[in-house]
Parts: sequence; C-alpha cells; structure tokens
Amino acid sequence: MGGSSPCASCKLLRRRCAKDCIFAPYFPSDDPLKFAIVHKVFGASNVSKMLQELPEQQRGDAVNSLVYEANARGRDPVYGCVGTISYLQNQVSQLQMQLAVAQAEILCIQMHQDKSYFLQNDLLNIPIPNANSFNKESLYGHDMVS
Amino acid sequence: MGGSSPCASCKLLRRRCAKDCIFAPYFPSDDPLKFAIVHKVFGASNVSKMLQELPEQQRGDAVNSLVYEANARGRDPVYGCVGTISYLQNQVSQLQMQLAVAQAEILCIQMHQDKSYFLQNDLLNIPIPNANSFNKESLYGHDMVS
Repeated sequence: MGGSSPCASCKLLRRRCAKDCIFAPYFPSDDPLKFAIVHKVFGASNVSKMLQELPEQQRGDAVNSLVYEANARGRDPVYGCVGTISYLQNQVSQLQMQLAVAQAEILCIQMHQDKSYFLQNDLLNIPIPNANSFNKESLYGHDMVS
Repeated sequence: MGGSSPCASCKLLRRRCAKDCIFAPYFPSDDPLKFAIVHKVFGASNVSKMLQELPEQQRGDAVNSLVYEANARGRDPVYGCVGTISYLQNQVSQLQMQLAVAQAEILCIQMHQDKSYFLQNDLLNIPIPNANSFNKESLYGHDMVS
C-alpha cells in the first residue's frame, strides 16, 4: 500500500503507488494475476471509476465480482458470465419441470390411493352384525324366552 | 458503417468511422446507449481487442453478452452479473432440495402402498377351494361312487 512496495495494479501500470491508492487494499503485490485479468477485461481506469463510485465497505465485494466476471470472460470469450447465467437458467427450468412432474405424481398417487380405499371399503362392505342383535330372541327364538 | 454516417461508437468517441470499423456492425447510430453502457464498463479499447480476438461469426453474440453484463453492472454496481449468478445458484439449490423431498415422498408413498397391499392380501387370505376338490367323492361319499 503505497511507498516502496507498490500494489499489483501500480506495478503493472508502472506508476508510483500512492498512500491512498484505490487499488492497493484489493490487489496485493503477491497476486499480480488478479489485477492483470481485471485490467485486461475492464481496464484500470474503468475499475478505478467503478470503485470510486462505491462506499469503501462495498469495494471489496465489487472487486471480487469484477475478478469473477473477468475470469469468466477469460474462460469463455464469447459469453463470459452470461454463459453461466444461461446455463443456470436452463437448470432452473429443468428442475422446475422435474419438480412439477414429481408433485403431479404425488397428487396422482394420493388420488389413486383415495379411490382404492373407497373402492375397497365398498367391496368389503359385508355388514358386521351389531352386538345388540345377539339378544336372547335371536339366539333362542321367541317362544323359549317368552 | 463508415463514411458520412458514423456508428454509435465512433460518434461517442468522436472519430471517423472507417469502412472496416469493428464496432459498426454491432453498434448502429440509432442506438447510442448500447455502446455507451459497454464503453462505460469495459472501455472501447478493451471491447475492440475482445472482438478482434474472435472470429466474425461470434462477435455478435460477444457484443450481446457484453451489453448484458454492462447493463447488469449498471443495475447492481457491486455485484453485477455475479449477483444474478448467485441468485440463480440459490434457486437451483432450493429446487434440488424440493425435488429430493418430493422424490423421497413418492418413494415413501410407494413403500407404504406396497406394505398395505401385502398386509391386506395376508388378512384376506381365505383359501378358495380348488375346482378339482369338488369331485364325486366329496359330493356323494366314497361308498356311493365305488
């Protein structure tokens, strides 16, 4: 951070690293590739402007997201991050479809179960005699009781 | 494309639009914002370099993805596209979890159904006499037949 040990950005840009260098807290001299990739995709001037427009506590997250985006562009020069977004959107669509199918299957099984239950209870509807019907009259006949 | 009618990029950069201007096919003069947002985030020089490194048939897709990324950065200066990726990754995780729960529920219902089926068939296991057992011997007795 400033002085005799320039940050990775100032080293690459071959300039003096000021004490208040906006890059220094996020691009340490021992990780030159981190700045190099961001510089290649966004340009040092744009990164500096973007960071200056943000409050200090958000700059670390912004740098991380810029590094992520720049790496994605390095891996996929045509689609970059948008390729990942497209892939994830497809995955979300497929999962939503699979979930809908699974939920429909659950509903279907439950409806089939309910139908089977009612059918079964109808088929097995053999009336069980009430305990009260086993009275003396039915067992021994009218005459014997009376 | 070149000559008296400069593309949106050359207009913004206040330069002559050459016949072989690399921006002209993708940044028409009637859509100045498209180039402005890309220029603000990536810088004209970087965009030009990125396009030059790609075969012509892929440049259109590359420009579209750069415009998408630049717009995302405009909407969310801290996370840009990475915010969308993070949101989608969370959505994928949640859907995978919901799908796993639904599939477990299906398995559970099916296992319960199988168990009920076997229990039921065990309870109703009243042996039905085989047709062969209704032979003359059983109907009329041994002596009458012999």
